[in-house]
Amino acid sequence: MTANPISPTIPLDAEGVQHGFLKLPYSRDDSAWGSVMIPITVIANGAGPTALLTGGNHGDEYEGPVALQELAATLKPEDITGRVIILPMMNTPAFAAGRRCSPIDGGNMNRSYPGKPDGTVTQKIAHYIATTLVPAADIVLDFHSGGSTLDFLPFAAAHVLEDKEQEAACMAAMQAFNAPYSVRMLEIDAVGMFDTEVETQGKTFVTTELGGAGTSTARSVAIARKGIRNLLRHAGILSGAPEIAETVQLDMPDETCFQFAMNAGLIEYQVDLGDTVEKGQPIARIWPADRTGVAPTPCLARRDGILAARHVPGLVKMGDFVGLVAVAT
Amino acid sequence: MTANPISPTIPLDAEGVQHGFLKLPYSRDDSAWGSVMIPITVIANGAGPTALLTGGNHGDEYEGPVALQELAATLKPEDITGRVIILPMMNTPAFAAGRRCSPIDGGNMNRSYPGKPDGTVTQKIAHYIATTLVPAADIVLDFHSGGSTLDFLPFAAAHVLEDKEQEAACMAAMQAFNAPYSVRMLEIDAVGMFDTEVETQGKTFVTTELGGAGTSTARSVAIARKGIRNLLRHAGILSGAPEIAETVQLDMPDETCFQFAMNAGLIEYQVDLGDTVEKGQPIARIWPADRTGVAPTPCLARRDGILAARHVPGLVKMGDFVGLVAVAT
Amino acid sequence: MTANPISPTIPLDAEGVQHGFLKLPYSRDDSAWGSVMIPITVIANGAGPTALLTGGNHGDEYEGPVALQELAATLKPEDITGRVIILPMMNTPAFAAGRRCSPIDGGNMNRSYPGKPDGTVTQKIAHYIATTLVPAADIVLDFHSGGSTLDFLPFAAAHVLEDKEQEAACMAAMQAFNAPYSVRMLEIDAVGMFDTEVETQGKTFVTTELGGAGTSTARSVAIARKGIRNLLRHAGILSGAPEIAETVQLDMPDETCFQFAMNAGLIEYQVDLGDTVEKGQPIARIWPADRTGVAPTPCLARRDGILAARHVPGLVKMGDFVGLVAVAT
Amino acid sequence: MTANPISPTIPLDAEGVQHGFLKLPYSRDDSAWGSVMIPITVIANGAGPTALLTGGNHGDEYEGPVALQELAATLKPEDITGRVIILPMMNTPAFAAGRRCSPIDGGNMNRSYPGKPDGTVTQKIAHYIATTLVPAADIVLDFHSGGSTLDFLPFAAAHVLEDKEQEAACMAAMQAFNAPYSVRMLEIDAVGMFDTEVETQGKTFVTTELGGAGTSTARSVAIARKGIRNLLRHAGILSGAPEIAETVQLDMPDETCFQFAMNAGLIEYQVDLGDTVEKGQPIARIWPADRTGVAPTPCLARRDGILAARHVPGLVKMGDFVGLVAVAT
Amino acid sequence: MTANPISPTIPLDAEGVQHGFLKLPYSRDDSAWGSVMIPITVIANGAGPTALLTGGNHGDEYEGPVALQELAATLKPEDITGRVIILPMMNTPAFAAGRRCSPIDGGNMNRSYPGKPDGTVTQKIAHYIATTLVPAADIVLDFHSGGSTLDFLPFAAAHVLEDKEQEAACMAAMQAFNAPYSVRMLEIDAVGMFDTEVETQGKTFVTTELGGAGTSTARSVAIARKGIRNLLRHAGILSGAPEIAETVQLDMPDETCFQFAMNAGLIEYQVDLGDTVEKGQPIARIWPADRTGVAPTPCLARRDGILAARHVPGLVKMGDFVGLVAVAT
Amino acid sequence: MTANPISPTIPLDAEGVQHGFLKLPYSRDDSAWGSVMIPITVIANGAGPTALLTGGNHGDEYEGPVALQELAATLKPEDITGRVIILPMMNTPAFAAGRRCSPIDGGNMNRSYPGKPDGTVTQKIAHYIATTLVPAADIVLDFHSGGSTLDFLPFAAAHVLEDKEQEAACMAAMQAFNAPYSVRMLEIDAVGMFDTEVETQGKTFVTTELGGAGTSTARSVAIARKGIRNLLRHAGILSGAPEIAETVQLDMPDETCFQFAMNAGLIEYQVDLGDTVEKGQPIARIWPADRTGVAPTPCLARRDGILAARHVPGLVKMGDFVGLVAVAT
Repeated sequence: MTANPISPTIPLDAEGVQHGFLKLPYSRDDSAWGSVMIPITVIANGAGPTALLTGGNHGDEYEGPVALQELAATLKPEDITGRVIILPMMNTPAFAAGRRCSPIDGGNMNRSYPGKPDGTVTQKIAHYIATTLVPAADIVLDFHSGGSTLDFLPFAAAHVLEDKEQEAACMAAMQAFNAPYSVRMLEIDAVGMFDTEVETQGKTFVTTELGGAGTSTARSVAIARKGIRNLLRHAGILSGAPEIAETVQLDMPDETCFQFAMNAGLIEYQVDLGDTVEKGQPIARIWPADRTGVAPTPCLARRDGILAARHVPGLVKMGDFVGLVAVAT
Repeated sequence: MTANPISPTIPLDAEGVQHGFLKLPYSRDDSAWGSVMIPITVIANGAGPTALLTGGNHGDEYEGPVALQELAATLKPEDITGRVIILPMMNTPAFAAGRRCSPIDGGNMNRSYPGKPDGTVTQKIAHYIATTLVPAADIVLDFHSGGSTLDFLPFAAAHVLEDKEQEAACMAAMQAFNAPYSVRMLEIDAVGMFDTEVETQGKTFVTTELGGAGTSTARSVAIARKGIRNLLRHAGILSGAPEIAETVQLDMPDETCFQFAMNAGLIEYQVDLGDTVEKGQPIARIWPADRTGVAPTPCLARRDGILAARHVPGLVKMGDFVGLVAVAT
Repeated sequence: MTANPISPTIPLDAEGVQHGFLKLPYSRDDSAWGSVMIPITVIANGAGPTALLTGGNHGDEYEGPVALQELAATLKPEDITGRVIILPMMNTPAFAAGRRCSPIDGGNMNRSYPGKPDGTVTQKIAHYIATTLVPAADIVLDFHSGGSTLDFLPFAAAHVLEDKEQEAACMAAMQAFNAPYSVRMLEIDAVGMFDTEVETQGKTFVTTELGGAGTSTARSVAIARKGIRNLLRHAGILSGAPEIAETVQLDMPDETCFQFAMNAGLIEYQVDLGDTVEKGQPIARIWPADRTGVAPTPCLARRDGILAARHVPGLVKMGDFVGLVAVAT
Repeated sequence: MTANPISPTIPLDAEGVQHGFLKLPYSRDDSAWGSVMIPITVIANGAGPTALLTGGNHGDEYEGPVALQELAATLKPEDITGRVIILPMMNTPAFAAGRRCSPIDGGNMNRSYPGKPDGTVTQKIAHYIATTLVPAADIVLDFHSGGSTLDFLPFAAAHVLEDKEQEAACMAAMQAFNAPYSVRMLEIDAVGMFDTEVETQGKTFVTTELGGAGTSTARSVAIARKGIRNLLRHAGILSGAPEIAETVQLDMPDETCFQFAMNAGLIEYQVDLGDTVEKGQPIARIWPADRTGVAPTPCLARRDGILAARHVPGLVKMGDFVGLVAVAT
Repeated sequence: MTANPISPTIPLDAEGVQHGFLKLPYSRDDSAWGSVMIPITVIANGAGPTALLTGGNHGDEYEGPVALQELAATLKPEDITGRVIILPMMNTPAFAAGRRCSPIDGGNMNRSYPGKPDGTVTQKIAHYIATTLVPAADIVLDFHSGGSTLDFLPFAAAHVLEDKEQEAACMAAMQAFNAPYSVRMLEIDAVGMFDTEVETQGKTFVTTELGGAGTSTARSVAIARKGIRNLLRHAGILSGAPEIAETVQLDMPDETCFQFAMNAGLIEYQVDLGDTVEKGQPIARIWPADRTGVAPTPCLARRDGILAARHVPGLVKMGDFVGLVAVAT
Repeated sequence: MTANPISPTIPLDAEGVQHGFLKLPYSRDDSAWGSVMIPITVIANGAGPTALLTGGNHGDEYEGPVALQELAATLKPEDITGRVIILPMMNTPAFAAGRRCSPIDGGNMNRSYPGKPDGTVTQKIAHYIATTLVPAADIVLDFHSGGSTLDFLPFAAAHVLEDKEQEAACMAAMQAFNAPYSVRMLEIDAVGMFDTEVETQGKTFVTTELGGAGTSTARSVAIARKGIRNLLRHAGILSGAPEIAETVQLDMPDETCFQFAMNAGLIEYQVDLGDTVEKGQPIARIWPADRTGVAPTPCLARRDGILAARHVPGLVKMGDFVGLVAVAT
């Protein structure tokens, strides 16, 4: 099998703080011997567990990158036991472009695992992380938000897994993260996800959705920052106990939670994130975008619950996601 | 002088409800005899004032288009005295693309007035509105929000004008709109704005900023909807008095209210919209987007006040707007 | 093996008329949870054969989509025995863009079979059709025309097959379609074609070329409409016998039928579609596109016959197809 | 006033045959000292009138370029009395791209007259032709066809002019051209047209529409070729009388001749070019392009007549031209 | 007249060293309140002349930007008498893109003078420089090289001017710059150039061409660096006398110095920069780029001289510049 | 396995001179039945060895294409014994675009071997060459230069191989080529290279780097021309002995020869190609591209040697190659 062409510019197992890059040669029209440089920080102090903290899996989601940049710049080796590996911008080309997917190859990083050493740029990055960083980790935290086109209630999540012991470890870590909302997720279509790769390797895994609309706020970053510290405490890498505040447990039991647009047009939301809705109540309605005097098409809730996610842009295309109605448990 | 090539598909002065288009011939590679079709609705009932209500001046701002689509579809002639002219998507090509400026010619509609009859598509639309619709109006309401790249506290605004009688009329109309925030604005650089064109013609004019981030919410649309009804009542077109709730009066006295990024990078806001800030306090800080382990650059408030507007995308470029600190009065 | 992510929004086996979509989740920069929605209609009435009728295999060929839209909107269950499955725009993204290939992935649908459940958007659509719709069909009719860059004499065609019984069934169905021209085709390079997939599954298959130049006419659509009715009668799904008019049998025995441009330039046809040509006669000549006063390069017929297809755009590139000389039999 | 930067590489007033270029310096990213080279041929023999023959005013219309390339390559000085100036590709950048408008600046050449010496590339070319070539001509023939997006019955046309003597000269020249159809045109919106520039200079002017759909045929080129010879005979540049066959006189009296699409979608023509239609009869109907099972929108003829022009691409956008119903006189 | 919207972030007349920007508000789809930030340094010490030193007039020419960046970072106020204003990247958007012209508006800065305060971004920058910086200067040095598509022998140049006293001052300054080659230039087409603007204001002006091919070398930057120091000494801003080495005086008397490609293709140079050529000798020949076995087209020198400039890319288009044959005097 | 769809338009084994194409059918939006046409010349005379000479492996490298075009146009069968197969533009689509990689599929030809018969256009070309032309050759010479983004000292090279007899044959051929510099190369990452494919088939293989910066010069083409003649003499195809001049033997022993940019910015080289450098000496320094007054970042040589290659464009991105320090042996 072909070797992965990525090489780190820093040792991944040295004590202390190392700031550097995963360097991927990338020959192209505008730089025959160019490279993709993926920023990485490793902070290590003695024997102990390894946490892998990742942001920028999608390039337009910002709570993770911001909180991880701060962590990389401020965490001191003497404060920890074990090792923290920080990748604030996993899909660096997508992040640099402020886009969900890589402008180089269109790759959606979260559908590119386990990657290929001789594949596209996105697949090579995925393969390196899957074969070099994930195996070295005990616990993995991957940050997501809604990106440019979705907005979420802020939650941490763990997956329903076949290995119930592993599932319990994940759920405990998710509760330690202690976002305002906490979700136990049954992933239907898990093929290609980073989540799946990490879980398949038997690791403890937590993911999040902390907001969206292509930005972050002081409030949403505070959730990320607190979650990281709590998770590192839970893992024993930082000392002390997690700070736990109230969290709402949410469930997304089946596909009736999800609603998609059957028309293109100008969307008007009739409820906002966090509002409760009843089955049959209009969540939104879609006005034509090209003429006046025509009645809108309603989008009716398919179950009772609270609006946990929505589409962001003011225009929708047919087939776009409209709303996620989750159930508080 | 060349005649403006736009023609309406409906009479603009008939009684009752007319839904149609302003039709602008637009010859191009993919349609030699194509047209730009700008939706318009006119609702008229007897003698009385004319209100011109416009949205989509920038194509990625949605409260206006949504509230005006609803008004066009639901307002009955028998409910009014006078005439209401509704243009929910003034810069239709920009609106259809979900972009601030027109994809046809790059035109920023709000810098294209008074327009040109033989200019670009954007200039032709501006010229038609300036020479045909504005002169027919007594009061004009133009909806704005922050669009895809800015987010605002929701406010209505009127301008400081040389004609103090006109200014008073505008301020009264703005107070009648009754948004959560109300702003008395001194426009420094008014060249090319729709506002300027309308005010120069001696009309009563109100503008708004009702949110942003490239979307609208149930709450922000409710502000627009109430503001329209209030304004039409204030103008005597709808009967009854405006519904007035509390509003915060804001002032933006000088350029120390505005802050711009002196670096490109990943932006972290340290206060959110509506938060109070003190002079010298960091509003945001900018992390490098391409490496870890480097300290961020702070953006310090240049005066006391509350954060009234901010940049949306998670990345900033040098020279981008960062924050607007307004003063409650 | 990965499951195909496409799901139909309607039952494919219910009695009566169902209009809906094949829904394919498609995550991308401008819609994280978006979908490709492929229109489908199923009309069923009791026990009987199933016909699968497809258009839009290439997105710039219009007789099929028009005739199938009309069929979907007008065919009544009580008129048929069995089932008709209608896909007027098989490669929906290509059709929406008016292009031969998909703007999403460049996929030429007719080179994408048998598809892949975890491949590109075009491959996923092909795979779903190949594994779900084709197996359910007894007879398949796929509409083609020349698209934006080719123009054809209107013909229906069936392939020379190894299974002579199947070939006879296909030829009979092609004759029932009864286009003005009828072609018995020996496909040299059949890899990836929908035709090949359907024939490999042992089905009766008819294809067409009904015109081109990126459009359709009242006359060319009439051929499609009549062909559909005739085919359904031939299959016993509609009652009655096909209406049979005269048809010219054409053959394309070998590669001397085909002519390609050995120069780029401005093409002048010297015969038109349907004209007879003799071996050595100029079909067209190519003028330089960038200068005057230079003699043109002739394109000489390589055999006797009639001009059955030609290049459409006024400019040719080296290697472009120029003309197809078929032999009436 | 700035001098026009174009210079010819050949003398425009020499006896005999000259093939060359109008050379326009054009500095750009990919060639700092590049040029646009517009092919031109001048054929002159003794004292006599000057004819200016132009094609490629729109870059996707081919009868003119083909017939003029042949003329430039074959016309001998000894066959003529006077001078023939041939510009087969007036908007050379548009022609090279096979597009209506220039890919350099988007310029529609036929809306760019009288041009500007310091304007865009398209305006500079227009200005040079208007100030150098048109003044030198006695009679001007400009070839048009429908281009990529329109298709026409083949006609020559002359305009209704204020100067009735000039109008008569133009009508006579148009009848001499002797296309299958002949049109007396009242131009409503003549601003920027080459026609207007030539007529304003008092010249005899004939224009044509000879087909379209982005191509030409042996039959349509034959019309152009015969028309050129006839016109040169009519002007006394070639000897002999024009060959006159039957022609249908058409009129387009008012705007009820024109029909535009009020919906986007898949267009089905119900009559073809040359078919007669009655007021209220459907010319075409528009099917939705994104779903099945919805009735089409009809496009009804607004007067009696024959279909003289239509839209080509299989999809229409709202505002696109659908059909031209002309009246035989 | 509209005021120019550019404002400097630093005082232009303060003593000492100021590093800052010319800030130009630039509203656009991706930043509603964005800016173009043009770097500027001002170094001043007491009364004395003002030199304006500019690079990046074209964005792909690098000797100026490199040498001026170094000067801005290292020149100390105490070393000078008077003032040095440094704009290393005059057309900042073009420079950031590594392109000759601005990616924002296509503007060639050196054809945009005297600019417009309400024009395009390029015109606004030109207008600000022309109205604010040039009037404040006594001597102006503008750096050019061949950019991505041209390569030059390294020379400084001054123009033949109507005011012979001014011309003498310019020639003296050019000789003080002391590049390996020195050129006395008769500008034929001076419209829109920065040179013309500066000279029209009566200033002493020197320009250069120091290499090209989209890059710079240690040797070419050394010429720029020495030239700056020499010029500042010549102006009395730096103390001491210019260091003068041998220079070759070149003349470009008329248009026979210039040669353009009459064919597109693969270019083979048969002499290199600095080589002597005789009239009629082939400078280059052009091979077809799409086929083998065809003889090349020669490009013959139109006069004796030395090759002073050439085209860089391996492919040429018709009308591209091929070579400049200058005359040593 | 699928057959490769490429067919030659000429016999590859006929005596005499054949100029033609490798014709690859390529269906696409703008030409449904289009082709990629790869120019090829075969010159044969009697029994003897076969040399395969290739240029345009990367489309922006010009010494090979120029020298091979001349060879194809001038080499006479009677001058040779054996056969010469000439492919001056191996990646024809990339060459036509003047880009390193194919604009059709982004394919870097030198990372596409051994190719796929049913892959992308680039892979199909590679597969045809690998399976049809390489097996027929005894000796293969592939021309490279630096392309648009790199510049090299002119050298021929041969690889260190496991088969020492083959290596010796390659080294002897490389010495026969006799470029100014000669390199014995240890390829670290040989996957996908044409070199690897040829060597794996046991052939004698020579490659070159003859300059760069997206162009060629009279001097660099002369090296190519002499090298070809020398190689054909060495192989016994041309008679006579190679002309041997002095050559510098270079070695690139390990990764300390290579230097990459750790910052984006404006690059200033402090040494030029061929200059000697010492370990720790600055090769270049990188200035910020967006502001003045900031110190540059130095790029220090990691070993003693001479600068053998460098980056061309004036701007660098992080991760771009900066310099190659080779060791003279």
